[in-house]
Amino acid sequence: MSREPLSLLSLIAHLKKLPGVGKKSAERFAFHLLSWPQEEIKQFITGIETAKTNIVPCQECGCLLDKEVLESSCHFCDPNKRDTKSLCILATPKEVYQFEESCSYHGLYHVLGTLLSPLNGCHPADLHLDKLLKRLQSLPVEEIIIALDSTIEGDATSLYLKQELSALNVRISRLAFGLPMGSSLDYVDGGTLSKALSGRQLF
Amino acid sequence: MSREPLSLLSLIAHLKKLPGVGKKSAERFAFHLLSWPQEEIKQFITGIETAKTNIVPCQECGCLLDKEVLESSCHFCDPNKRDTKSLCILATPKEVYQFEESCSYHGLYHVLGTLLSPLNGCHPADLHLDKLLKRLQSLPVEEIIIALDSTIEGDATSLYLKQELSALNVRISRLAFGLPMGSSLDYVDGGTLSKALSGRQLF
Repeated sequence: MSREPLSLLSLIAHLKKLPGVGKKSAERFAFHLLSWPQEEIKQFITGIETAKTNIVPCQECGCLLDKEVLESSCHFCDPNKRDTKSLCILATPKEVYQFEESCSYHGLYHVLGTLLSPLNGCHPADLHLDKLLKRLQSLPVEEIIIALDSTIEGDATSLYLKQELSALNVRISRLAFGLPMGSSLDYVDGGTLSKALSGRQLF
Repeated sequence: MSREPLSLLSLIAHLKKLPGVGKKSAERFAFHLLSWPQEEIKQFITGIETAKTNIVPCQECGCLLDKEVLESSCHFCDPNKRDTKSLCILATPKEVYQFEESCSYHGLYHVLGTLLSPLNGCHPADLHLDKLLKRLQSLPVEEIIIALDSTIEGDATSLYLKQELSALNVRISRLAFGLPMGSSLDYVDGGTLSKALSGRQLF
């Protein structure tokens, strides 16, 4: 595009920083925002500011919480509400809510905040394993579930965690690999198929 | 998702109003925004505010312009820079930039702002044709190009415009229908194919 007002180009540049948003989508978003009434724009801005100010990570588990909730206690760490026998290690706070939504896990969480990625400057020290080890000492955890992405970074981090945690007397497991639910073999890649085959279970 | 902080839920609700953004994308955007540094959030908010305040439509053609540019003159209306013999009628200001980007049109623009859509409360009066007719009287326009969507609303508005403008002594044309560039016949729908056939040209 050419000749757009400068302030529009600047807004488009900001919107392009959102994940998965390219030039075309950013332009569509920007023109859409311009068509919102002033009042709605104000509420949107307040929404961003409030979220950024009010949401803080729990110092214990790393899950995101509203500031005032956190001052009383983090409900993801509450031993009365959660099964303290298992602890699930995740990369980002977003994934906590994905697990909660699946209604299939009721144990504790530990959010690493990042995955090992030397090229992007994420080294073992950035995982703050000392915090995790200290936490594990004070909890009656019997199983650690490593729930990281099945990417190069996720695999590397999982292996590193396994190595660092193997000295503890706890079972360490990792999420299963295989066909996603509802998938057709036609569209499944070779790597997934080979993992699904090697991980096959008695039926 | 469940148990997300309230301010996060509110931010997600705002982001879901953007075009083509569903629950999943809005959640991804919200968590991404939370990870931006405070300074970047501030710049983003200023970007939205500035764009909303500074960008105004030209009273003549409806194209969007920075306020200070507009005070001098709209470059889309400038008879020294544009070919005043043709006028292209568009529905939204965004489309002006798409035409400019194609570098294939150098005439004037007229932005209607909306398409006829009785179900959504958009009636002929909302097209402000009086403004267009007044403009046409003062310009040496020889051709009016109707460049509206090929949707029910676009078709209805085009027909209505053709009817209202037919009394003027100007050629009225509409964008061609046919195969999009780079398309494979395999993926083209019947309606498009039939239009491409009836509009075939000597080769």
